[in-house]
Amino acid sequence: MSVTPKYLTGDKAAIQEFLDKYDVFLFDCDGVLWSGDLIFEGTVETLEMLRQKGKQVVFVTNNSTKSRADYKKKLATLGIPADIEEIFSSSYSASIYISRILSLPPTKRKVFVLGESGIEQELTAESVPFIGGTDPSYNRTITPADYGQIVSGDRSLIDPEVGVVLVGLDFHINYLKLALAYHYIQRGAVFLATNVDSTLPNAGSLFPGAGTISAPLVKMLGGREPVSLGKPSQAMMEAVCGKFRFERGRACMVGDRLDTDIRFGIEGGLGGTLAVLTGVNSKDDFLRGEVRPAAYVDGLKDLLEGA
Amino acid sequence: MSVTPKYLTGDKAAIQEFLDKYDVFLFDCDGVLWSGDLIFEGTVETLEMLRQKGKQVVFVTNNSTKSRADYKKKLATLGIPADIEEIFSSSYSASIYISRILSLPPTKRKVFVLGESGIEQELTAESVPFIGGTDPSYNRTITPADYGQIVSGDRSLIDPEVGVVLVGLDFHINYLKLALAYHYIQRGAVFLATNVDSTLPNAGSLFPGAGTISAPLVKMLGGREPVSLGKPSQAMMEAVCGKFRFERGRACMVGDRLDTDIRFGIEGGLGGTLAVLTGVNSKDDFLRGEVRPAAYVDGLKDLLEGA
Repeated sequence: MSVTPKYLTGDKAAIQEFLDKYDVFLFDCDGVLWSGDLIFEGTVETLEMLRQKGKQVVFVTNNSTKSRADYKKKLATLGIPADIEEIFSSSYSASIYISRILSLPPTKRKVFVLGESGIEQELTAESVPFIGGTDPSYNRTITPADYGQIVSGDRSLIDPEVGVVLVGLDFHINYLKLALAYHYIQRGAVFLATNVDSTLPNAGSLFPGAGTISAPLVKMLGGREPVSLGKPSQAMMEAVCGKFRFERGRACMVGDRLDTDIRFGIEGGLGGTLAVLTGVNSKDDFLRGEVRPAAYVDGLKDLLEGA
Repeated sequence: MSVTPKYLTGDKAAIQEFLDKYDVFLFDCDGVLWSGDLIFEGTVETLEMLRQKGKQVVFVTNNSTKSRADYKKKLATLGIPADIEEIFSSSYSASIYISRILSLPPTKRKVFVLGESGIEQELTAESVPFIGGTDPSYNRTITPADYGQIVSGDRSLIDPEVGVVLVGLDFHINYLKLALAYHYIQRGAVFLATNVDSTLPNAGSLFPGAGTISAPLVKMLGGREPVSLGKPSQAMMEAVCGKFRFERGRACMVGDRLDTDIRFGIEGGLGGTLAVLTGVNSKDDFLRGEVRPAAYVDGLKDLLEGA
């Protein structure tokens, strides 16, 4: 992608032309609409403006710690009205992939989860059985006895029905869980990740993302990466397009990250990509990156000038 | 390295010729002398045989969870007499590197440790101040308030004197510690690892090694690796050779891992390398690997035939 991204901020005509080109806007959330728990000025008004223009708005997030229901609640708290069907989280995408696309043998249908309740809720909604996750019995230090029991496949630690290891962001990651995940994979479990973002924006800086929870396993597996169901994986794009049946050429992906959001839009063959400077990547990244957005603005609210 | 490794097991003449070539034997421990807490049959006798032939024996281990004193105790428990000076652990190697080689400004001399007591003991022996490590106050879940405090450099969480992040095997790894380590590195701390082994052999299988504790940070740092002070790092070889002042051509490295032990011996210009089949790598690895030992045996005890 050697095009130079178009800078739209302050250019009313260019913004109007940009808005007219699309019927659907897919939004990354964190870094675009808000940062952590702080909503950006103008977010609510911008989304409202788009809806008034008759645009379809879709929220596409790699945050696996929340379910779609959690997200709807978060959006409401911040003053953003949204329907649950407009929300696509990586935990939802992963759950759909497991329940509808993976062909698991009947005796291997259980998922060992490294992650938070968002994954659990979406797996439950798809009737996929799971262990691990937020179960507090896993929040402990590994003991000398555990090693032998894990290796021998003792039922107290190793569930023979586990056929999938699903890794998302886990604020309770520990050595025992990593050891169990590795042994399930070595026993043949499919290695999936909700997403592999290296970092998670919070408090104006970066913290470990979901990719840091799968990284130890990738290291142990000699570099073998999980199948990721979050952006930029096209599994998520298929789910979004399957639901709304829009024309891809009339859709635009809006995000702050080149390697997830912008790549997601480009590889999905969307009509456009818009990057914002309120998140992870910088203007320099946009102008010189290997992956480049078609256009960029300082912040989402700059689109209001095209109202 | 396209030589074909020589198989010595059962070949008395070849073993005797092999033993005669060296005055010094550097031994990896786990996977060579023992596995986990189980000593291999013939280990004690083989080491005794070598000592009786006047060979210098050195124990070189990447296990950072133990100090040299801990190792001497472990060796004694297993019936292997050893002097503390014969033991080189990656925690010792890292401590020497920090205290004697790194030129840290006087206000940045503290080390943030991700690891166990072996590292703490060796840092203490070298009078290097540290925080983190086994301090139980770090064994907790990250809280919403932590994010802002870490970012703002609040003294309750961020110590401005930290100039080094040292990562070893940490059985108590958690999200908070990873977040702190990342922020110290972003604030300019030197990123070191005792070693970056991907796996740790135990109970006849593999568990997460020290490299899985640094892997999340490497992921967050866009692929930037720590300076590793364990095998195959030549920092450790310099320390070993500096102490014993032996002729490298008359020394042989004995180990089970191609990517650490055998590479360590080859890159260190030792006269020979001997691989054993009681650890991580297989015969196929030895014969077809990118890095290959000069010779290999089924197990260390096979050398007894050359007594």
